[in-house]
Amino acid sequence: MTTRTLIADLQTMTDGPVRVSGWVETVRDQKKVQFVVLRDESGALQLVNPRTFGEDGAEVASEVSTTISSLSQGSFVSVEGALKHDERVKLGGVEVKVASLDVAALAIPETPIADDSGIDKRMDWRFLDLRVPAHALIFKIQTTFLHALRTYWVEHDFVEIMTPKLMASASESKAELFRVDYFEGNAFLAQSPQFFKQMAQSAGFGKIFEVGPAFRADPSFTSRHATEFTSVDTEFSWIESHEDVMKLHEELLVAGFTAVKEKHGDAIKELFDVEIAVPTVPFPRIPLAEAKEIVAKRGYEVPRADDDMDPEGERQISAYVAEEFGHQFVFLTDYASSIRPFYHMRHEGNPQLTNSYDLIFNGTEISTGAQREHRVEILEAQARDKGLEPEELAGYLDFFRYGVPPHGGFGMGLARVLMLMLKLPNLRETTYLFRGPTRLEP
Amino acid sequence: MTTRTLIADLQTMTDGPVRVSGWVETVRDQKKVQFVVLRDESGALQLVNPRTFGEDGAEVASEVSTTISSLSQGSFVSVEGALKHDERVKLGGVEVKVASLDVAALAIPETPIADDSGIDKRMDWRFLDLRVPAHALIFKIQTTFLHALRTYWVEHDFVEIMTPKLMASASESKAELFRVDYFEGNAFLAQSPQFFKQMAQSAGFGKIFEVGPAFRADPSFTSRHATEFTSVDTEFSWIESHEDVMKLHEELLVAGFTAVKEKHGDAIKELFDVEIAVPTVPFPRIPLAEAKEIVAKRGYEVPRADDDMDPEGERQISAYVAEEFGHQFVFLTDYASSIRPFYHMRHEGNPQLTNSYDLIFNGTEISTGAQREHRVEILEAQARDKGLEPEELAGYLDFFRYGVPPHGGFGMGLARVLMLMLKLPNLRETTYLFRGPTRLEP
Repeated sequence: MTTRTLIADLQTMTDGPVRVSGWVETVRDQKKVQFVVLRDESGALQLVNPRTFGEDGAEVASEVSTTISSLSQGSFVSVEGALKHDERVKLGGVEVKVASLDVAALAIPETPIADDSGIDKRMDWRFLDLRVPAHALIFKIQTTFLHALRTYWVEHDFVEIMTPKLMASASESKAELFRVDYFEGNAFLAQSPQFFKQMAQSAGFGKIFEVGPAFRADPSFTSRHATEFTSVDTEFSWIESHEDVMKLHEELLVAGFTAVKEKHGDAIKELFDVEIAVPTVPFPRIPLAEAKEIVAKRGYEVPRADDDMDPEGERQISAYVAEEFGHQFVFLTDYASSIRPFYHMRHEGNPQLTNSYDLIFNGTEISTGAQREHRVEILEAQARDKGLEPEELAGYLDFFRYGVPPHGGFGMGLARVLMLMLKLPNLRETTYLFRGPTRLEP
Repeated sequence: MTTRTLIADLQTMTDGPVRVSGWVETVRDQKKVQFVVLRDESGALQLVNPRTFGEDGAEVASEVSTTISSLSQGSFVSVEGALKHDERVKLGGVEVKVASLDVAALAIPETPIADDSGIDKRMDWRFLDLRVPAHALIFKIQTTFLHALRTYWVEHDFVEIMTPKLMASASESKAELFRVDYFEGNAFLAQSPQFFKQMAQSAGFGKIFEVGPAFRADPSFTSRHATEFTSVDTEFSWIESHEDVMKLHEELLVAGFTAVKEKHGDAIKELFDVEIAVPTVPFPRIPLAEAKEIVAKRGYEVPRADDDMDPEGERQISAYVAEEFGHQFVFLTDYASSIRPFYHMRHEGNPQLTNSYDLIFNGTEISTGAQREHRVEILEAQARDKGLEPEELAGYLDFFRYGVPPHGGFGMGLARVLMLMLKLPNLRETTYLFRGPTRLEP
């Protein structure tokens, strides 16, 4: 049997016998000839089957023509036939004349979703929704992006860790914890790998990374929130300040965007009408207080009692940075201690501010990074300051009692990066199977 | 300030000023000179500080010597000084004469674990346990091994997916499900990405991989079980049989072992006294029924009523394969349908057997692979045959109603591979933070 060829590879092959496999996109069952558009993970191809006629002019039904007539959209078939280059064929300038056609699985003919189905309906039938080339492309981009990040990390001697998702207690806010029945007791799902990636610094690992799920029992229904998401995390020792974290962050994103542009730039232009731009370094850095002034001057007063930004403020500062610096990214730095977790290091000499940042990409926050407090007495005081009981943090504080070097890192939401990269309105589009307060299926 | 140099890089540098950072392993506070062994993620180094004496012969205490005297084991310090090559120094033939020493974090002096502490005690203090070079090496090996696998996948156009860990219902046996409070209802933790990686075949992704956590509410306390583990998964379309899956499996393992041997072979020999051998392909394949006969001839009758192997049987067949073929790996193939999940494809013409295999490595099962049943009527019949209600599987069966090509794949336990590669007795050693029925901390 001939080995399967991907449709995208046919154009560079010489005419002759080939075998292609995929699913049926359309069938045009004409009087003299049958056409099938076959799609696989690499592209689409026209299959052609001229009907045969007897001397009396009546059709001599062949097995192939009968099978083609029976094909429903979405059925998976494997085809042997003759490849022929023909400039007149719009679909890639090639076609395959069918010699034999094997039906692997016949699809039921009704398709529950159409091109104009709403996002929720499409999520119900995600496995069909992902057959759309643009939707499938998102996960090829994800693959390329993550492999570029991991290659950067591995080449720079970062160690990959898999931190547990089952925890005995909260690592961040208790409000967003999922509780699990754990034999006779309880466990909780990790909201982030924060404590465990810091543990690696105490263990002397030096530099680590992890790409894994994180869970938030957040009843939000926005376009940017999910109850389960892929968190891209890194943490490393012997930094001077959060500036070192931002430098690493930039380099990783440049590596990721460079790889995506190179491998998928043309397809992204074609299917999303987006020109991927590799960001220049350094990304602009603006202290949060200054960013709020800039936004206010543009006529938007952030309506928050605390010192934080809000989504509209993020859009405004992004617009400003795009106009002023022509940049898609901006680091907002030096967030107030009041709106940061207890483990963020505070400024030497000004404990109102932290050595931290948010990274805004095309108007939306994709990441939080910081230098962490590694001095146990200060860390414990900051925990108390936030109303936390050091007893509850005993295991975490133990790391520091036995010594942790200066360190920092960031966590970044993968689906948000992809959403903003492709200028999509919702991270449901860039999540393989979205999970929200009312969605656990498929 | 001088940039930090890793200790392992000192040997190839010329004498002169350097900065090294790490934790204190030992202090020898002698009358005329102080020695500190400093360790970082790359190695260990001797620091030297000659005391200074006045004309009267009394010591003139310097800041450095006072600080060194105060150092507890495990404290993190950053040191500037003069690198000097000296063949007499046993530790790498170099030492650094301290000019200044900055204490980043002083450790409390009592260390709760020692070299002879039991595994449970060591797990309690995992962040200290991981400072042991052999223990840290395991995670460098993990990094290299996984990066080799992912590079193979990416170069062969596999798509990386992240399947959700929160599910509405079971994907495998209900007995091992963890239940989660999910807002007003329930969710369950994924025991494997099985259904979702098959969904990608229906979506036309062709070839996918995932490395992520899986959860089993299994009250076992063996050396091979955990309630949370990292599962290495792949699934791909248009296979002929499980033979194609085994071929991919072999190639991935060869890629992983080759990378590990190249990068860590010497360190593994030194710290584990294990010679990493890259396996030759093809790995031996033995049908399970034949394997049981071989084991019986060796004098071991597997004491099981069903047709399965048991751990001693796995050790016996592994010993046989090592003796007969000099191979560490063996595929046991064609398991009985009675002991395989409903979604394993059964033999054409003999529904008692499945197109499946287990992979045994140095005496222990590390993986199960199979061709999956993709024909919806047969799949549904097989589910009924196992006592499952098709209604409960409605979402899963929908994938197949809309067409899925022939496909297969495997899932492999990462910690087991590393355990057997390094000939360690327990996967607690090769898991960053082990989770078991009575362990959720740290």
